[in-house]
Amino acid sequence: MAKAPSHPRKSDRRQLRTRLIRRQFQFHEKRPHALVIIVAGYLSSDGEDAVDHLLDWMDPRNIRVYALDRNGRGDELVDRYRPPQGRYWRRLPARGEIAVFHGGWYGPLLRPGAPDDDSLSCLCRLEAMLQAEGVKVLKIWLDRPAKDVRQRLKTLQADTATAWRVSAQDRAVLKQLPAYRRQVDRVLAQTACDGGAPWHRLELDHSPARWEDLAALTLDALKPGRFQPATAPRRVAPPRVQPLRPPPPDNGIKKQDYESQLAHWQGRLRRLTASAAFAKRSLVIVFEGYDAAGKGGAIRRLSRGIDPAQLAVVPIAAPTAEDRLYPYLWRFWRHIPPYHEVTIFDRSWYGRVLVERVEGFARRADWQRAYGEIRDFEHELTAHGVVLVKIWLDVSAEEQRQRFAARGKTPYKQYKLTPADLKNAELRPAYEKAVAEMFARTHTAQAPWAVIAADDKRFARIAVLRHVVETLTAALEK
Amino acid sequence: MAKAPSHPRKSDRRQLRTRLIRRQFQFHEKRPHALVIIVAGYLSSDGEDAVDHLLDWMDPRNIRVYALDRNGRGDELVDRYRPPQGRYWRRLPARGEIAVFHGGWYGPLLRPGAPDDDSLSCLCRLEAMLQAEGVKVLKIWLDRPAKDVRQRLKTLQADTATAWRVSAQDRAVLKQLPAYRRQVDRVLAQTACDGGAPWHRLELDHSPARWEDLAALTLDALKPGRFQPATAPRRVAPPRVQPLRPPPPDNGIKKQDYESQLAHWQGRLRRLTASAAFAKRSLVIVFEGYDAAGKGGAIRRLSRGIDPAQLAVVPIAAPTAEDRLYPYLWRFWRHIPPYHEVTIFDRSWYGRVLVERVEGFARRADWQRAYGEIRDFEHELTAHGVVLVKIWLDVSAEEQRQRFAARGKTPYKQYKLTPADLKNAELRPAYEKAVAEMFARTHTAQAPWAVIAADDKRFARIAVLRHVVETLTAALEK
Repeated sequence: MAKAPSHPRKSDRRQLRTRLIRRQFQFHEKRPHALVIIVAGYLSSDGEDAVDHLLDWMDPRNIRVYALDRNGRGDELVDRYRPPQGRYWRRLPARGEIAVFHGGWYGPLLRPGAPDDDSLSCLCRLEAMLQAEGVKVLKIWLDRPAKDVRQRLKTLQADTATAWRVSAQDRAVLKQLPAYRRQVDRVLAQTACDGGAPWHRLELDHSPARWEDLAALTLDALKPGRFQPATAPRRVAPPRVQPLRPPPPDNGIKKQDYESQLAHWQGRLRRLTASAAFAKRSLVIVFEGYDAAGKGGAIRRLSRGIDPAQLAVVPIAAPTAEDRLYPYLWRFWRHIPPYHEVTIFDRSWYGRVLVERVEGFARRADWQRAYGEIRDFEHELTAHGVVLVKIWLDVSAEEQRQRFAARGKTPYKQYKLTPADLKNAELRPAYEKAVAEMFARTHTAQAPWAVIAADDKRFARIAVLRHVVETLTAALEK
Repeated sequence: MAKAPSHPRKSDRRQLRTRLIRRQFQFHEKRPHALVIIVAGYLSSDGEDAVDHLLDWMDPRNIRVYALDRNGRGDELVDRYRPPQGRYWRRLPARGEIAVFHGGWYGPLLRPGAPDDDSLSCLCRLEAMLQAEGVKVLKIWLDRPAKDVRQRLKTLQADTATAWRVSAQDRAVLKQLPAYRRQVDRVLAQTACDGGAPWHRLELDHSPARWEDLAALTLDALKPGRFQPATAPRRVAPPRVQPLRPPPPDNGIKKQDYESQLAHWQGRLRRLTASAAFAKRSLVIVFEGYDAAGKGGAIRRLSRGIDPAQLAVVPIAAPTAEDRLYPYLWRFWRHIPPYHEVTIFDRSWYGRVLVERVEGFARRADWQRAYGEIRDFEHELTAHGVVLVKIWLDVSAEEQRQRFAARGKTPYKQYKLTPADLKNAELRPAYEKAVAEMFARTHTAQAPWAVIAADDKRFARIAVLRHVVETLTAALEK
């Protein structure tokens, strides 16, 4: 537990404000990182007071304040149809911007009896990842002695001008104050480790200097400087799973059989995705594979088995300038479908441990921590009803060479051949090493890889459809 | 009414596909414009068939299909809390991308007895604007003779494998077929004029060539080439309104009075925005004014009168690379608040007729059509419950000069002084001309400008708060 820095009690408020607003300006200009401030306390009015003071000192542009627990309007409903972490990802500040979350991802966890140790350590890992990816997390606990909580509520309720500030949640806290205090102590202790952000306890006594402590903490959090975790977050080892299925024997399929099998599996997929069982689920399909493995063709056939109005096909290329203002998982979170919808990713977050590793776009430390981050991300999806299918289209080096050669000849395929393709072929050995490690570290029971032999296109397309149908059928029966 | 181009009946399907997929590839690479395809017809299954054929020929990446009428899930609720046009703006394709809307913005208008002439001509102007801003609109009406509609429905219903494709809406159409046909003829005739996109009628007879006509139309729509309206859209003249209020006399406010007046108006604004009357309204406040007019300071004081969790303060600078992929209004639509929330724009869409005009960033023809487009945009907001307050902070040239000089001296204001500021001061006469024309053409009864004298900062800040409170009070009483 980090103590709030002591601040000279007689400091010039004006000077503090000058420093804050200057640093905020530089922060917005230079964009060294993003800042998430989580304010939480026994009383909701304490959080509101903290935010009010913060905004009094600072420039309200480029600061957004969210009280996600409190509202229940349209935009919140979007959240309810997706995994819970999505609500923070949607509102994550870009580098150079600030978001204040009342309660943050701790809101519900601070109520007595709520969370198990696993979800707390999961939050630690989330914060470690955010910080390593350039989102500083400043966590403020607004503390009060028990007696003071009661006194403060009484004072607020006594005056009609302030009585509205006492929320139902505040009354619930008052009723079970000792249980709340135990829970808060436990959560705060357990989420200040493992590379997560430390908590800062701010004692809300009657000295006005407490708010200057908040300003000093904010000033410090705006300072440029890369986050260096003291210790790497403790990761759960990937669960033991059956070894990857080897590519099914690839016998080839006759043209006639192909058309009828295609129609069969597409029909089944249409019925599955239209079924009532899919009404509160969603489906994410990830395609990875070497260039010319046939991803585009397989996706075209697969997508004909889904109502186009339920479907988004998302090609993943190099990140845009906007993407680079956020952690690398942000641009995938943007496309996580709501209930009853499907997203097909043509390449995915695995780029981090494939192309970014092989081409040197990511530092070694960054792609190495990505395995655990990806497992956490996929766990967040599958734990909340998203059916996740990960497909590796396995094309041999020889077949790949032949396809590159043929691309020059088919008129409507010429556009696909780029100089990068030829270069990538040279990098194949480096890719093979990265692929093997990717399988070893991200082939989990909840989100297993399917390796599909892709030297025969017809076979691969049918095998993809069949695998998706079978996985979805099994998931919807649960 | 444009006829679908006749296409050689024996054309090679393969060749057509080759051309389509090649042009789609170039379209995505070069990004000459965005493409919106609206498919509509008497029967929903006809629209689905059209989309299925289109996706069979094309690459499903970078095409999104939307059936907004049909769904009622989370994401649709976001739409319901905002003006209706917002649902299309949220899903507008970027340059190089394609969106297919089942029914598009015509969906509800094609039912008997629905729209008045005004809303139809409003759609024409919307399409003219989109096309002038780089979004081509291809409108396809899937036609059938009355007898054929009945026959087709009968055929679909007879087979259990297809019976599900008959929607409740289809049955409604069948019941009142003559009324639907009259309505469709009227809507199609009236929305093919005024610079809007033409309708293409595709006769769904039994020849397979009809879908090749669709491919040919799409091929044509992907062709680069700037949209040239045959005639400028007919705009409604701005409604007559009382002349702009001159800046109120600026008497100065003593420091003591200032603090208490600030608290008074901030308190009133807090109560208003927290009130039940505001639960299904929202508030947009636009700040414009010369540099150093005091926008930032006024916004800070104003924003303290609104719960931070209801508020977004959006500074508008030069458009980003992503913004440039869309019509200029897109980035403002992104920030239109849902019910019960407030957005303050620090500069706004008026940049089009101010900085872009004066600095020559927009072509003359583009900023000239912007007056009408802005009136339409603001009408869309105010007609659907958004309270819109437009404030011009009026600082004299002399006071502006003094403020620039002072900025160098106050430590926490130095950051505000940039070389651009000094240059803008030189351009003041050009700006004054642009401002005068802006007032003349966008000061409407629904969205009037308030000009507030800003040479005295305290006076201006109180006047801003007071104007917002009074406007909102009046609007919520309606």
